[in-house]
Amino acid sequence: MIELGGKRLRPSLTLMSCDMFGGRIENALAPAMGLELFHNFTLLHDDIMDQAPIRRGKETVFKKWNTNSAILSGDTLFVMAYELVTKTTPALLPQVLELFNDTARKVCEGQQYDMDYEFRGDVSIDDYLLMIRLKTAVLISCSLKLGAIIAMAPAEEAGLIYDFGENLGLAFQLQDDYLDVFGEVDKFGKEIGNDIVTNKKTYLYLKAFELAGGEKLELLTRHYRDRSLPAPEKVATITGIYRELGIDVLTRSLIDEYFARALDIMGRINIPEERKQLLLELAAQMVNRES
Amino acid sequence: MIELGGKRLRPSLTLMSCDMFGGRIENALAPAMGLELFHNFTLLHDDIMDQAPIRRGKETVFKKWNTNSAILSGDTLFVMAYELVTKTTPALLPQVLELFNDTARKVCEGQQYDMDYEFRGDVSIDDYLLMIRLKTAVLISCSLKLGAIIAMAPAEEAGLIYDFGENLGLAFQLQDDYLDVFGEVDKFGKEIGNDIVTNKKTYLYLKAFELAGGEKLELLTRHYRDRSLPAPEKVATITGIYRELGIDVLTRSLIDEYFARALDIMGRINIPEERKQLLLELAAQMVNRES
Repeated sequence: MIELGGKRLRPSLTLMSCDMFGGRIENALAPAMGLELFHNFTLLHDDIMDQAPIRRGKETVFKKWNTNSAILSGDTLFVMAYELVTKTTPALLPQVLELFNDTARKVCEGQQYDMDYEFRGDVSIDDYLLMIRLKTAVLISCSLKLGAIIAMAPAEEAGLIYDFGENLGLAFQLQDDYLDVFGEVDKFGKEIGNDIVTNKKTYLYLKAFELAGGEKLELLTRHYRDRSLPAPEKVATITGIYRELGIDVLTRSLIDEYFARALDIMGRINIPEERKQLLLELAAQMVNRES
Repeated sequence: MIELGGKRLRPSLTLMSCDMFGGRIENALAPAMGLELFHNFTLLHDDIMDQAPIRRGKETVFKKWNTNSAILSGDTLFVMAYELVTKTTPALLPQVLELFNDTARKVCEGQQYDMDYEFRGDVSIDDYLLMIRLKTAVLISCSLKLGAIIAMAPAEEAGLIYDFGENLGLAFQLQDDYLDVFGEVDKFGKEIGNDIVTNKKTYLYLKAFELAGGEKLELLTRHYRDRSLPAPEKVATITGIYRELGIDVLTRSLIDEYFARALDIMGRINIPEERKQLLLELAAQMVNRES
């Protein structure tokens, strides 16, 4: 699982946040690794639940070995995540545990919502935003706040970096959804339109159904219901309707809105701007990425 | 999962150990509950891995709902276990975490061995004892040591109660294996001979193959290999061979041996005998139980 690679975004955020708050990044190394293991644990179990055969161009764990090994090595990875996350000064343990326990629980809740939504016909945009907040954004927040705690930042500033992370995380996930439809296949590195093929109720899907009327609504409904439709045709038609409805522009503007909120919160953290630069550059990459 | 009931053995051990070492059992309540949740988390995931339809006379979680809900509610239960186990004085957190992380990892390892053994032809009695030590005994040890830590017992005595628990845990699991073959159905509360039907490589199975020769070995091998054999016939024949080989007596004597070791270790804990009474009574029940 670990050898599949990945951007190592979450540990990077922890180290950068620790550094920004004037902490020693050496002290954040083990906890940062713990968050990466936790993230991989969730992917490992998610792949079983989604029956996903491929991740990062390679076979998923349950496919390569079997479901039982995937469940159990996920559980073990979770233990190892706790071992590493709690490798910190004893005085910081209560804060670290409160943050990590809360995050872990929310990520599980988010995954449950994600699965539930597949079978629910009444998912609203607010429901969707709640789900990605829990499933994705809180771990971004947690990564940043963990760095702040290890740097012994004041509680108020640790709270601000958490809120920064939550807005950044929402923008990050929306960017993922955007790229899945409007990305360029050469840059994205995976197939375009997978969310459309699987009828995933993303912000784009929900907004399109909210805005579409008449013929467009009828076209959307028909294309999402028809299971015999070849995937390329379904993707092309629905992407076309999305463009006509302005879903691309609306999604980008929602991403910009969350990112602006994040920047606003960052502005309230009382640290010289130049110390924030590295983290802000990474954050900008997260919401402007093409892959 | 929690409403299925159970003996609540592990939290009882934590509370009794805390009390024995002169601690306030109120301080041990949350961590003790955490261990019970952890135990239930492992059962929940084990039931998926074993495809077990029934536990304690009721449908298992994955059967009643589905595998995905069972994986995810197991993960969440694991988070809740950490939340409760770490509800203790900050000064004790490093010790508590070291103990619990180590235990959780070993229990996962034990489960992996248990699954591996099913497909291995070269499992030895030592392999089996290692597996039940990891899968079952260390959680008994952990329960007892957690009580000792919360009672702020000296490190040496906390180590002794851990070792007491490990021997007790081995005796406890061997008693389980014994009852599965030689128990009385009315008292045992579940079907007799399940380990035989499923070809489980318990101490009884491994010892029988070690001791059997000639006709008995041939009979054993044939009955274990023949998948078309009706379960009652298989159980009756193999139980008969076990008795002829003295497996019942040998198993009881191994249980007695581990229990005697446990008692010997308890004797080295410098606490008045009357304070040990309650815990010793429970321990005796664990290895002499009929259900």
